[in-house]
Amino acid sequence: MRTGIATVCLSGTLKEKMQACAIAGFDGIEIFEQDLVTTALSPEDVRKMAADLGLGLDLYQPFRDFDGVTPDLLKANLKRAEAKFNLMERLGMDTILVCSNVATATIDDDGLRAEQLDELARLAGDHGVKVAYEALAWGKYVNDYEHAYRLVEMVDHPNLGTCLDSFHILSRDWDTAPIEDMNAEKIFFVQVADAPQLTMDVLSWSRHYRVFPGEGQFELAKFMGHVVRAGYTGPVSLEVFNDVFRQSDTERTAVDAMRSLIWLEEQSAKWLSGSPAETGAGTQGNNRRRYPMELATLPKVNEPAGFNFAEVKADDTAQLEKLLGQLGFEFNGRHRTKDVQLWTMGQARVIINEQAASHAEPAIAALGFDVDSPVIASARAQQLKAPVVARRVQADEEVFQGIAAPDSTEIFLCQGSPDGTAAWTQEFGEGVGHPEAGRAAVIDHVNLAQPWQHFDEAVLFYTSALALEPQPFAEVPSPGGLVRSQVMQTGNKAVRLVLNLAPAQQAEKARKTYQEHIAFAVDDLVATARSARDRGLEFLQIPANYYEDLDARFDLEPGFLATLKELNLLYDRDADGEFLHFYTATVGSVFFEMAERRGSYDGYGAPNAPVRHAVQYDSLHRV
Amino acid sequence: MRTGIATVCLSGTLKEKMQACAIAGFDGIEIFEQDLVTTALSPEDVRKMAADLGLGLDLYQPFRDFDGVTPDLLKANLKRAEAKFNLMERLGMDTILVCSNVATATIDDDGLRAEQLDELARLAGDHGVKVAYEALAWGKYVNDYEHAYRLVEMVDHPNLGTCLDSFHILSRDWDTAPIEDMNAEKIFFVQVADAPQLTMDVLSWSRHYRVFPGEGQFELAKFMGHVVRAGYTGPVSLEVFNDVFRQSDTERTAVDAMRSLIWLEEQSAKWLSGSPAETGAGTQGNNRRRYPMELATLPKVNEPAGFNFAEVKADDTAQLEKLLGQLGFEFNGRHRTKDVQLWTMGQARVIINEQAASHAEPAIAALGFDVDSPVIASARAQQLKAPVVARRVQADEEVFQGIAAPDSTEIFLCQGSPDGTAAWTQEFGEGVGHPEAGRAAVIDHVNLAQPWQHFDEAVLFYTSALALEPQPFAEVPSPGGLVRSQVMQTGNKAVRLVLNLAPAQQAEKARKTYQEHIAFAVDDLVATARSARDRGLEFLQIPANYYEDLDARFDLEPGFLATLKELNLLYDRDADGEFLHFYTATVGSVFFEMAERRGSYDGYGAPNAPVRHAVQYDSLHRV
Repeated sequence: MRTGIATVCLSGTLKEKMQACAIAGFDGIEIFEQDLVTTALSPEDVRKMAADLGLGLDLYQPFRDFDGVTPDLLKANLKRAEAKFNLMERLGMDTILVCSNVATATIDDDGLRAEQLDELARLAGDHGVKVAYEALAWGKYVNDYEHAYRLVEMVDHPNLGTCLDSFHILSRDWDTAPIEDMNAEKIFFVQVADAPQLTMDVLSWSRHYRVFPGEGQFELAKFMGHVVRAGYTGPVSLEVFNDVFRQSDTERTAVDAMRSLIWLEEQSAKWLSGSPAETGAGTQGNNRRRYPMELATLPKVNEPAGFNFAEVKADDTAQLEKLLGQLGFEFNGRHRTKDVQLWTMGQARVIINEQAASHAEPAIAALGFDVDSPVIASARAQQLKAPVVARRVQADEEVFQGIAAPDSTEIFLCQGSPDGTAAWTQEFGEGVGHPEAGRAAVIDHVNLAQPWQHFDEAVLFYTSALALEPQPFAEVPSPGGLVRSQVMQTGNKAVRLVLNLAPAQQAEKARKTYQEHIAFAVDDLVATARSARDRGLEFLQIPANYYEDLDARFDLEPGFLATLKELNLLYDRDADGEFLHFYTATVGSVFFEMAERRGSYDGYGAPNAPVRHAVQYDSLHRV
Repeated sequence: MRTGIATVCLSGTLKEKMQACAIAGFDGIEIFEQDLVTTALSPEDVRKMAADLGLGLDLYQPFRDFDGVTPDLLKANLKRAEAKFNLMERLGMDTILVCSNVATATIDDDGLRAEQLDELARLAGDHGVKVAYEALAWGKYVNDYEHAYRLVEMVDHPNLGTCLDSFHILSRDWDTAPIEDMNAEKIFFVQVADAPQLTMDVLSWSRHYRVFPGEGQFELAKFMGHVVRAGYTGPVSLEVFNDVFRQSDTERTAVDAMRSLIWLEEQSAKWLSGSPAETGAGTQGNNRRRYPMELATLPKVNEPAGFNFAEVKADDTAQLEKLLGQLGFEFNGRHRTKDVQLWTMGQARVIINEQAASHAEPAIAALGFDVDSPVIASARAQQLKAPVVARRVQADEEVFQGIAAPDSTEIFLCQGSPDGTAAWTQEFGEGVGHPEAGRAAVIDHVNLAQPWQHFDEAVLFYTSALALEPQPFAEVPSPGGLVRSQVMQTGNKAVRLVLNLAPAQQAEKARKTYQEHIAFAVDDLVATARSARDRGLEFLQIPANYYEDLDARFDLEPGFLATLKELNLLYDRDADGEFLHFYTATVGSVFFEMAERRGSYDGYGAPNAPVRHAVQYDSLHRV
């Protein structure tokens, strides 16, 4: 698959964008006109730079408001087009995107439109230029991709074809199956963009909220499957207008973009192999080799079987040790060569890393996941352009395959075992047991704070590299603003990751990063809480008003309510079951949660999150 | 008018919110349930604090999903309601908001709904509580305020009334005139919120994009006029869910909110006096005294007649002096007692202030506006809670009335004169003339950068205190992201202010604040540019590609195009006329623009803004 990206997806100058695209490994780019108009580079400079960088200049875009106009305007439009064709010659480019008219069209007549497009195609032909005509979702008269294609067929000129843009097609919910019946020679270009399902005017949606494939909710693999079945072999190019990407680091966004295409390629191949063709070329058999577009594959991984460990890091680890001890974790000794400690409760393993920079506050540093094959999973992640994390190991120690997540958390791909143990724990010395150490416990979920520039990137990272599935996102009120909360989890719920995008003030006013936490699930939360209290644990203090409201909502048994209140436990209930949990005080930017799931309760106590935020905010502001 | 605000409008803890509301001068507040549930303050504490702060506790809200349910659910809902009624007794509150059911209603039958509301009203009566029933715009069966009112009439119980919320009514575009025919005794509460006109699902619109009155596009004065004509005299309370306000400084947002109600009060009175009543009470004559709600008035001002001066500030002013001299400004000497210089060209006056902090880069510090009466204008601004700015003056000098804009720019209200001169210039010594000093010139517009937290606040500030009118906003692409651009201007166009909200990276990556500028209009831009070039002015360098694109778009006369290119002039044309302009290099965070308006051109050369941004970005990043 030939990969491409429009320069409008990225921040920076044209030069910065082109360099970033080359570094990220794109085959070609679309030159967004404004980027050319505003650069001091001459067209010849741009042509040479692209050649030096090994980037194809695949599409010049956009050319607007051409068709369906009065004769006078047609004349002016053709003159305008000729200037652009001349420019393209200097750039060494041969394809231009012409969007269906949104502003100046006054005549709704396919015959006239075809005539005018024919004139344009003939002029383009004189300059060796191919015109890719696209139906904008908000085109005045032409807003349906099949309509644009019919016009292309009517004109039937070798220099006129169509451009398929997934956003313009899927935002209008047009059926994509008819793409298979198109003549591939008339498809000059394919643009892909994903988007969250929003109910708003399609122009604003398009201009601000597009995201890279895998970061939204469009059925892009299916769209691409139809495109492949049609026999199209040209560029598959990202055109993503996104307010955040336009403000983010250029190179990093380019890598995120490239990752999305690599993932889409795999998903498209998967869709093709799983979906019998029904129409056109497809009716002749479900045989991928019939379609000339080559779709690269990735090393295959299953979803992780569970958390292997979580690691917290600090300069002074005393507070962390105290908290874990009070929660009932067992100290399992120090590593024989590294400055790290192992603490466990049941199958929940926490590493305390003492190697943090001086004066570094406690923070979540790494997460380990149980995978079938660490090497295959790492190979996959690296093909998806995840940065590799190296850790020093001695000859006889287990080698961890590590990659860096977008928020810099280190992700280690570990060899899972059927009984839930981990071989590397043998590298640790003897510790001091606790009576409750044998308590059944696992890491239930981990909440990670995400920088606002990298939220969508993180969703794609965990989706593509770790096979987690994004759930519908929620927004939780806090005294510092709304916190966007995105759950990523495995089908079996053994791995649950919550990505939190904190409001700006949270960090600014408190002069701390947004708090993150690790939650452990136990069988008997009340007993766990009592033991912890006896050991002097500092619980997050839950206001009395909360328990009154809880009672008004759930009509709880008085004794049970009293226990909840006595132990600062939070409670939630839904049709599937119940959820009991409590939080510790925060050290640095980390706190811990202990939880008990009753029945088939599948949430995270979201109705309680505002209470937690308010109490944490209050205690931060009192400091 | 009794003013109120819901705690959900503000960031912070309940205590912080209540204190901020008292400081801003609100009569009462609505307690948003979540703020109570999450506070460590007991209901009694809250009651005492409110009394100490002089704040009424006017509404407890929201109580959700009560009506149209099955008998079992009704029983649970009544129990839940009773818990809240008991809580309200402890708080000393007597009114609760009950929203129309969105989630649990299964029976669409007004008779049943009325029965259930009657049960609720009777229970409320037992606790001395009044229930204000409100139709949510997205209520499952009840989403129209007239429907909610009909139910209230059907029940006809003294403890059941309705709540009118401008958002739920105006977002659905319901006719507001029927409000006049309502029985005021059945209107228990009025909530006001403004909003930008967005095309999106009404729930998201409501939860994220509400703004304070005067910051959006709803016809709130008319809405309030109908409410007043109905005879309502209760609280008029803000309920504004806004993602930005929830993250902003609590006290400051409370003041912004209060300003919006003061302004709305004035606008409502204006609407009432200008709009003959048509229905109900109003048919008996257009006499405001008939309506018992007292609407306070403000000192009246007309829109400013023009800019009086602009002031730039720097530690080292040499670069500013050089730029102004090269542009053709005349140095009019130093002030006789202050460290400021006066530079003029025609009626464009620029003060260079040398009193900046050490190492402060050049920046726009103040703007002067010609008003009919500085004292009246200042009184108005102060009643609108604008902070006063004091400047030292000697006994015989003109006293400037100064207020601080939300972005900290100092705004001076100056005595205008019919001939456009300013008396205070006599306080300056003799300067050195320039040949072009007599050139006709005025300040055409000023662009000010706005912090993201204060953008809406700034719109209301300039609307209410300075009588500028907000125009539809635009978004301009720049290499660092989209720049939101909001023009505020007078009807006669003599004052044009552009508020720019810069993307985050612009400031971060460049380690500078977003650039601001002052634009001057002259009669002959080409001559001005030639003279400036001869004096060595450093123009913002416009790329050659820009001129090719310009030619493709406008088909310009070759000689004219060559002149534009030679002098780095930008050009725009529309149906009304033409616009020529150029920019200087930036010093500190300031640059200047010279412009010529031909015909009735009324814009700002917006199509050229991306070029300016790109060149400025590029030069900042090269530093």
